[in-house]
Amino acid sequence: MGNTFGHLFRVTTWGESHGAAIGAVVDGCPPLLPLAEADIQPDLDRRAPGQSHLVTQRRESDTVRILSGVFEGRTLGTPISLMIVNEDMRPGDYREIQEKYRPSHADYTYDAKYGTRDWRGGGRTSARETAGRVAAGAIARKLLATRWGVEIVACVSKVGTLVAECDVETVTRAAVDRTPIRCPDPAAAERMIAAVEAVRKEGDSLGGVVTCALRHCPVGWGEPVFDRLEADLAKAVLSLPASKGFEIGSGFAGTDLTGRAHNDEYYMDGDRVRTRTNRSGGVQGGIANGETIYFRVAFKPTATIVREQRTVTVRHEDTTLTGRGRHDPCVLPRAVPMVEAMAALVLADHALRHEAIRPK
Amino acid sequence: MGNTFGHLFRVTTWGESHGAAIGAVVDGCPPLLPLAEADIQPDLDRRAPGQSHLVTQRRESDTVRILSGVFEGRTLGTPISLMIVNEDMRPGDYREIQEKYRPSHADYTYDAKYGTRDWRGGGRTSARETAGRVAAGAIARKLLATRWGVEIVACVSKVGTLVAECDVETVTRAAVDRTPIRCPDPAAAERMIAAVEAVRKEGDSLGGVVTCALRHCPVGWGEPVFDRLEADLAKAVLSLPASKGFEIGSGFAGTDLTGRAHNDEYYMDGDRVRTRTNRSGGVQGGIANGETIYFRVAFKPTATIVREQRTVTVRHEDTTLTGRGRHDPCVLPRAVPMVEAMAALVLADHALRHEAIRPK
Amino acid sequence: MGNTFGHLFRVTTWGESHGAAIGAVVDGCPPLLPLAEADIQPDLDRRAPGQSHLVTQRRESDTVRILSGVFEGRTLGTPISLMIVNEDMRPGDYREIQEKYRPSHADYTYDAKYGTRDWRGGGRTSARETAGRVAAGAIARKLLATRWGVEIVACVSKVGTLVAECDVETVTRAAVDRTPIRCPDPAAAERMIAAVEAVRKEGDSLGGVVTCALRHCPVGWGEPVFDRLEADLAKAVLSLPASKGFEIGSGFAGTDLTGRAHNDEYYMDGDRVRTRTNRSGGVQGGIANGETIYFRVAFKPTATIVREQRTVTVRHEDTTLTGRGRHDPCVLPRAVPMVEAMAALVLADHALRHEAIRPK
Amino acid sequence: MGNTFGHLFRVTTWGESHGAAIGAVVDGCPPLLPLAEADIQPDLDRRAPGQSHLVTQRRESDTVRILSGVFEGRTLGTPISLMIVNEDMRPGDYREIQEKYRPSHADYTYDAKYGTRDWRGGGRTSARETAGRVAAGAIARKLLATRWGVEIVACVSKVGTLVAECDVETVTRAAVDRTPIRCPDPAAAERMIAAVEAVRKEGDSLGGVVTCALRHCPVGWGEPVFDRLEADLAKAVLSLPASKGFEIGSGFAGTDLTGRAHNDEYYMDGDRVRTRTNRSGGVQGGIANGETIYFRVAFKPTATIVREQRTVTVRHEDTTLTGRGRHDPCVLPRAVPMVEAMAALVLADHALRHEAIRPK
Repeated sequence: MGNTFGHLFRVTTWGESHGAAIGAVVDGCPPLLPLAEADIQPDLDRRAPGQSHLVTQRRESDTVRILSGVFEGRTLGTPISLMIVNEDMRPGDYREIQEKYRPSHADYTYDAKYGTRDWRGGGRTSARETAGRVAAGAIARKLLATRWGVEIVACVSKVGTLVAECDVETVTRAAVDRTPIRCPDPAAAERMIAAVEAVRKEGDSLGGVVTCALRHCPVGWGEPVFDRLEADLAKAVLSLPASKGFEIGSGFAGTDLTGRAHNDEYYMDGDRVRTRTNRSGGVQGGIANGETIYFRVAFKPTATIVREQRTVTVRHEDTTLTGRGRHDPCVLPRAVPMVEAMAALVLADHALRHEAIRPK
Repeated sequence: MGNTFGHLFRVTTWGESHGAAIGAVVDGCPPLLPLAEADIQPDLDRRAPGQSHLVTQRRESDTVRILSGVFEGRTLGTPISLMIVNEDMRPGDYREIQEKYRPSHADYTYDAKYGTRDWRGGGRTSARETAGRVAAGAIARKLLATRWGVEIVACVSKVGTLVAECDVETVTRAAVDRTPIRCPDPAAAERMIAAVEAVRKEGDSLGGVVTCALRHCPVGWGEPVFDRLEADLAKAVLSLPASKGFEIGSGFAGTDLTGRAHNDEYYMDGDRVRTRTNRSGGVQGGIANGETIYFRVAFKPTATIVREQRTVTVRHEDTTLTGRGRHDPCVLPRAVPMVEAMAALVLADHALRHEAIRPK
Repeated sequence: MGNTFGHLFRVTTWGESHGAAIGAVVDGCPPLLPLAEADIQPDLDRRAPGQSHLVTQRRESDTVRILSGVFEGRTLGTPISLMIVNEDMRPGDYREIQEKYRPSHADYTYDAKYGTRDWRGGGRTSARETAGRVAAGAIARKLLATRWGVEIVACVSKVGTLVAECDVETVTRAAVDRTPIRCPDPAAAERMIAAVEAVRKEGDSLGGVVTCALRHCPVGWGEPVFDRLEADLAKAVLSLPASKGFEIGSGFAGTDLTGRAHNDEYYMDGDRVRTRTNRSGGVQGGIANGETIYFRVAFKPTATIVREQRTVTVRHEDTTLTGRGRHDPCVLPRAVPMVEAMAALVLADHALRHEAIRPK
Repeated sequence: MGNTFGHLFRVTTWGESHGAAIGAVVDGCPPLLPLAEADIQPDLDRRAPGQSHLVTQRRESDTVRILSGVFEGRTLGTPISLMIVNEDMRPGDYREIQEKYRPSHADYTYDAKYGTRDWRGGGRTSARETAGRVAAGAIARKLLATRWGVEIVACVSKVGTLVAECDVETVTRAAVDRTPIRCPDPAAAERMIAAVEAVRKEGDSLGGVVTCALRHCPVGWGEPVFDRLEADLAKAVLSLPASKGFEIGSGFAGTDLTGRAHNDEYYMDGDRVRTRTNRSGGVQGGIANGETIYFRVAFKPTATIVREQRTVTVRHEDTTLTGRGRHDPCVLPRAVPMVEAMAALVLADHALRHEAIRPK
């Protein structure tokens, strides 16, 4: 259990990295939304491996197929089944990890929890699982854009120790996709790319931070006290492989300030209640306040490295392991569509939950 | 909706700050756990206002009463209803905020979402709501300690710009409670207390960071892919008032490292699989690996300050507001039991979920 | 677990028969609904014991108190906590059942499941638990009536072997409450009352059937494929103590017919699509079709009888037990408000679920 | 929404009758259960159309494929994705129902609810949707049989007005499958088959009753107060197309008896607590008591008949419709595996829920 996300707009993902296919079922998408595979494929392509030498060279066309829930170009209100057939499966690459636990991977914990695991390519723990989420997220994103005008843009704002500025009010997907590292600051992007190249040659890896902006969310989304909007966003992104942290608005840095410096004062902007600053990150008391929602997600450096490391065998003996197989020196560019997808799933769910109870 | 937390060990909280009472219902606690009010009251006392001059002077004895689910000193396996009667209610203090939205509070978003709000003391948005969580968390904690030997200890590790070290392997509740600021490092605690005193006099406030350690969790808790243990912990603490960030293990700082420096190598410690380092924070692939789980939570400076601030009225006119009423210059000491409670609720839920499917 | 009902309009009940109190928390009620204790008390009074000599003489005033979620006479959109203090507790009546399992009661299964039980008055298995449901159902009913004009009327249509007609299109609460047996057919009611009197004198008991009509439900409520409206109604009423069966529309008797005789033909009634007959019971494919929804619920004869019966002790020895204590010779009149409450909870939940996704 | 069933052992079905495929995702199946397509296919074959002239002649091989969650012949503890490709699609058969609402079908209510529907073969309202449930149920059944020795056998006990006896303690699948009508009483079966033949020739249809026995369920399964075992069974079967009623144990007929005649007395059978009679149907207070659980499900006569009927068009004009297309004169034989599947899903879910909290 644990493979369903959402309360009303619900996604269930399935599939192992080297099984027959992976996919997702979206239940709760409202009817009459225009939808076709072409709405989903671009997001999958951004997540796919092999886009550039910065990421893993596994070749998967990641072609999505809609098997149900859409009729004559529009959603039916019934479950939308999405499937992506697995293609480039070379289980031979993974014989060694059948026998040995990769450091900072989940091989050991899966074995301990389930008494078994699919060792081929990490099975269910592979980032490949996120393809289903990205496909489902594309549907959520379309719903949000069509019905409420919501915009979702994420970008890479840190790679290793290299930091870039990202203006959450103005950043566009076009600017983000201008470089393969998906950082909209061209100078920083160049340095980041060089840094990734350098670790790739050394068989090492880098982590970083993704910043995400959610613009034009209607005031009122979010369900206190437990299902606060930021709580569900935090859960959503911390469920992504390799994520280690989440902060919204002023985040950890905001703890340096006093209340006087931190508070967001209100003012009237025409007939709209606005805040002069946005340290809250667009959410107050767990509910969207109409300002841009923005948050940051930390991703650790990729655990797979082409280096000898000490570890233990499945029979609990000390040993060493030297990484082989396709290797993703920096997951950050591919994490951008994953973060966007998870944010879209959260917002779509909260949009519907708010519809259900909003005062009339 | 949104007031229930957990899948099997489930907590529903209810109550407004200045209503008749607040409380929680715990459904899913296994039967035969020895339980009495005395198991819960100490945690509530740590959360209560008025413990020291560092926190708000609202006087609430916060006496919990168990109304159901316990018989002859042990749980029945039926819902446990917990109630705390509200005592020190002075709605007169709050007349001004009936008319004006307090900056960085949720008055505006509640009005926008629900078309109404209980303006007395913040109603449901008050930190008072967390008393129900802390009471429920005490039950979860007792279950975890009794059945699996799990220890949960949180402490204040940052106040404003003042940082303290906190050894997650060894910190004890006794050490934490030695000072009213709940920082186990005595020198840092002294400086933190002075800093809180200083802002209190100025009518200002401070934020900070709580670090939390979960020790002796069995290997295997956590339900990928969405209900990863860290994802549920993140949601749990981001649902607390004033929280702005969460990080587990190496967190945001870990993004500075390369994979080689970051990975946790495995080794055999007798018949136990251990990691030499613990940058993973005790969780791999969303599942506990048997090492200490630790995470950090950022809390913004308290929004209530005794200063004039610009804001708008409920009729959408620009105005100013000068805070009055009881004021909590630094929520951090009281946040410690809240974080512990939320962590306990997550672990108890995952413990039961794992019991349901673990291989036999 | 298992003490929460509903997906969006959610009710959690708590409390043992002879504990301090019983109650319910309603989460998900939309804001701005006018609500006071006076909206709830009449339904509780209909459920209460001691209304007539037909039912148990336990004296409980069953006075409900709203502890949260209502402010200035209207709902806040936050959880509504309802509490009823237990008054007439005579645990002395129950010493024998501490030692022996009552036939066709749940004493044995509770002990087997939980390893413990509250033997005072049946604890959680007592029909007393339903007071929380009836209180919550009154809120649901008010929401349904206020917002959608839905009417819910149940009545007793069978007691023992005595059957009464009940016209689901026209039956009113006033007609139902005209006699203490809650059967709107006066002649049948008289015979039923005499039958109950007769078994009461013999220390025996009777069962029967409650028929329930849901009128003016908007077309469209119901969530296929699993959460069909009739499926959730069936679950709702089968969760009531002593219920053994559910049928909607033509029910079991409809299996005697051929499709030709059974089908409901459509016709236009002005601009409204109607069916000429209503063997479907107002639901097609799990979705309300705008006709009156009606269903029947079977309740077994009360298990508590004042007769010697063979049974076993808690130590698993054969023995006999002679019922004492207050005895309810026929639960049917009190089941009427319970069935109405459960139907209201189902409809309120489906109303909100439909709001969330309906085409705009 | 509404396409997921279960709390821990969870099934999500997807797919329209004439779309590319239909399927189900099972999340929460414990790891290490031996599983292959061959465990599932036999149940699907029993549900499939075209088995005999008694049922619809649509030809679907209904070949199931496991796409995930199984590795080296055993379950992984991850989601199990099941897919059945649709083959015999003749949308041409359905042009008329694109324009007209079939009486006692869900065409109208789907249009009203969603503003759209897939009119090809009934889309999601087709009994074809149940193939996914039957496939998922086969996994649940295997889990129950392997781990707890539970046996599930359903049979046809009534067709039209013809009634057969079915001994729930002894009936076997072999006896059930001896005749195409799936009634284990050979004499009754013969009469039922003749009756179905007769209505088939007239273009008419019959309904009936399925009786289901669940044997060897451990004492303790069931989660009061709302998720009583019989409540979840009732919901499960009332979610099947064409079902109109559910009764457990003595059911509606039990309301004829007095408590004295109805109660099940306990006695010791060796060290086992047993009841002398089983009018409770194996469940007391919502919890299995160790006796055979048995229940009955009413199915209305198939709505599709080859007769002219009055109805309305999608543009809300009165019209007539004469059924064509493949026609299932009696759904009962195919309902047998559907009922078994739903019962298996309920029991597997409750088995895991009980594991989570049972006293140790």
